Amino acid sequence: MLHESPMAQALDAALLGVRGANPLVGAVLVSAEGEVLAQGHHRGAGTFHAERDALATFFRDHPEGADLRDATLYSTLEPCRQQGRQPACTQLIIDSGVGHVVHGASDPTINGGGAAVLARAGIDVVSGVMAAQCAAQNHRWTCAQRQNRPFVTAHLAQTLDARIAAADGTSQWITSAASREHTHRVRSRADAILVGTNTVTVDDPRLSARTPDGDPAGRQPLRAVMGMTPISPRARLTQGLPEGEGWLQLSTRDPLEALQELGRTTHGGHPINHVLVEGGQSVLSAFFAADLVDEVFAYHAPLLLGAGRSSVGDIGVRTLDEAPRFALDPAENGPVRIMDSDVCVHLQPKGDTCSPES
Amino acid sequence: MLHESPMAQALDAALLGVRGANPLVGAVLVSAEGEVLAQGHHRGAGTFHAERDALATFFRDHPEGADLRDATLYSTLEPCRQQGRQPACTQLIIDSGVGHVVHGASDPTINGGGAAVLARAGIDVVSGVMAAQCAAQNHRWTCAQRQNRPFVTAHLAQTLDARIAAADGTSQWITSAASREHTHRVRSRADAILVGTNTVTVDDPRLSARTPDGDPAGRQPLRAVMGMTPISPRARLTQGLPEGEGWLQLSTRDPLEALQELGRTTHGGHPINHVLVEGGQSVLSAFFAADLVDEVFAYHAPLLLGAGRSSVGDIGVRTLDEAPRFALDPAENGPVRIMDSDVCVHLQPKGDTCSPES
Repeated sequence: MLHESPMAQALDAALLGVRGANPLVGAVLVSAEGEVLAQGHHRGAGTFHAERDALATFFRDHPEGADLRDATLYSTLEPCRQQGRQPACTQLIIDSGVGHVVHGASDPTINGGGAAVLARAGIDVVSGVMAAQCAAQNHRWTCAQRQNRPFVTAHLAQTLDARIAAADGTSQWITSAASREHTHRVRSRADAILVGTNTVTVDDPRLSARTPDGDPAGRQPLRAVMGMTPISPRARLTQGLPEGEGWLQLSTRDPLEALQELGRTTHGGHPINHVLVEGGQSVLSAFFAADLVDEVFAYHAPLLLGAGRSSVGDIGVRTLDEAPRFALDPAENGPVRIMDSDVCVHLQPKGDTCSPES
Repeated sequence: MLHESPMAQALDAALLGVRGANPLVGAVLVSAEGEVLAQGHHRGAGTFHAERDALATFFRDHPEGADLRDATLYSTLEPCRQQGRQPACTQLIIDSGVGHVVHGASDPTINGGGAAVLARAGIDVVSGVMAAQCAAQNHRWTCAQRQNRPFVTAHLAQTLDARIAAADGTSQWITSAASREHTHRVRSRADAILVGTNTVTVDDPRLSARTPDGDPAGRQPLRAVMGMTPISPRARLTQGLPEGEGWLQLSTRDPLEALQELGRTTHGGHPINHVLVEGGQSVLSAFFAADLVDEVFAYHAPLLLGAGRSSVGDIGVRTLDEAPRFALDPAENGPVRIMDSDVCVHLQPKGDTCSPES
């Protein structure tokens, strides 16, 4: 009971982060008297882990150092024990002098085992506090890990009647400038963007991540095209470069195969752990039908077309009971955001389902 | 300039109301020193007008009466001078002893002329303050008045991919309990609910307004069916009663004709000034294509069907530039509401367009 209030705060802190290559994680540092000394959360791949974020916040305010032997660090996830792009949290915690660690979910990846490392270093460790809630917060990330595939974000940018193009094929622009800016932010944190060959033929997108000024964002994802139709060397997404230099084609119609091929690829020296599936209809439908979407941004633009391509086509559902259902995702500042004239709804698959391991 | 701050407050107050048979109206009572004494707004047909709401609020706090000779009553709309379901505002204002009235838009209906009535009674009247903003707040209501037809609210209750039924026709329930409860609230303030004959055949709805407990709401709208297919006497919406007793068929496929026929009808002794168009696809598409929708509630339920009927079908739009566009409607507690798992977006047609008078 004592541990639940700070762990609940850590769970709330975790929701300030963004989904993607890494799970949502929150951390809270609490004194022996129960006073919250600092709070932290993970902001996405390549940034501080939550435990480090909380400790860094605390030591920023205590440059002279402090004795944390009686303090407790709460984390929604077992602290990692292996150095990745970030140093191992276990070592940072040991170096900080924190005497107690309480964590929620266990780390299901190869980075698991951090609790034992901390205990061996003489830290008092309590595991599994609110473990179900902590695990539920990342159930789809864990699902992706179990299936040994990248985390998948789907992008639905559509009219009020869920069209992505008018009858004559025109589609620029259905969504507002603010929606498109948000898409570029999501692009810049993904490792790869995936579209279908038909989208390349019809829309000829650049698939680059750009700042609001139209300049290239600092981080550019891999540009991936899925399907059997060959890509023209004049397609804008190639940027005039041969395949393998910033873009590639996945010659399959099977979304799991496409993800596994991406999972074997690197881009800029990093593995592909997060894929943004932008469309069009065939690609999105294949991913939804295979239950391979972990997160959805649905941009609802307030116009009607009445005809033209729908965002999602046949996904093998014949009757209402078979429909895949989603839940509002509280992560990243809440599930609903107004973007100029549009409403963006943030969703994740409902419940705790995960298809069998592949 | 002096008048703009209280008028802006009156405009904000107006947004607390609901759209329908009557326009949004807000009122603010201000002392000679510029202190706000009371604020009011109109809550829909059959309730206090905004001016009366503000005065009633003030006198509730001043049961001993008060001298309002130096006070100013601001209203976004010219006070009405004719008794309808509510007493004439001009008489209430004269009786209150208010010395000054400032209003925004002029009343375009037969209730217009209130400003002159007040002036003749010795009240100092300023007309047209922020008139453009005040008129814009009700541009679609004014449009319906000009076309001499009821105000039309459209209801889109759909999946993430804008389907209203699965491939096999199942549709109960796509939206959440909270969404359906909101629909019943909108039904209970409409004068008539309109569906197509196909919806009656397929869904056999009762079309009654019910409370959250499932009991009949106090006010039941007329149940209207549009289309040429005869209605079965066993259809639930008839409630076993012959046509004309709570329900009727509009034997036309033309939405303006249907509205005009409803406009010539009464229900429970009142004219039909507000129609809720619930669907299905053919009826909604006809109303959108004819620019006869003044307000939209779009309920986005978080599931996918991939096949099955779309909420809106052909509306004669071939290319993106021809698409009818909408704007987020700030009335009634803001444009976006979370209803259990659903997101309800409140919209109105964008801009100041109104088709020519019929």
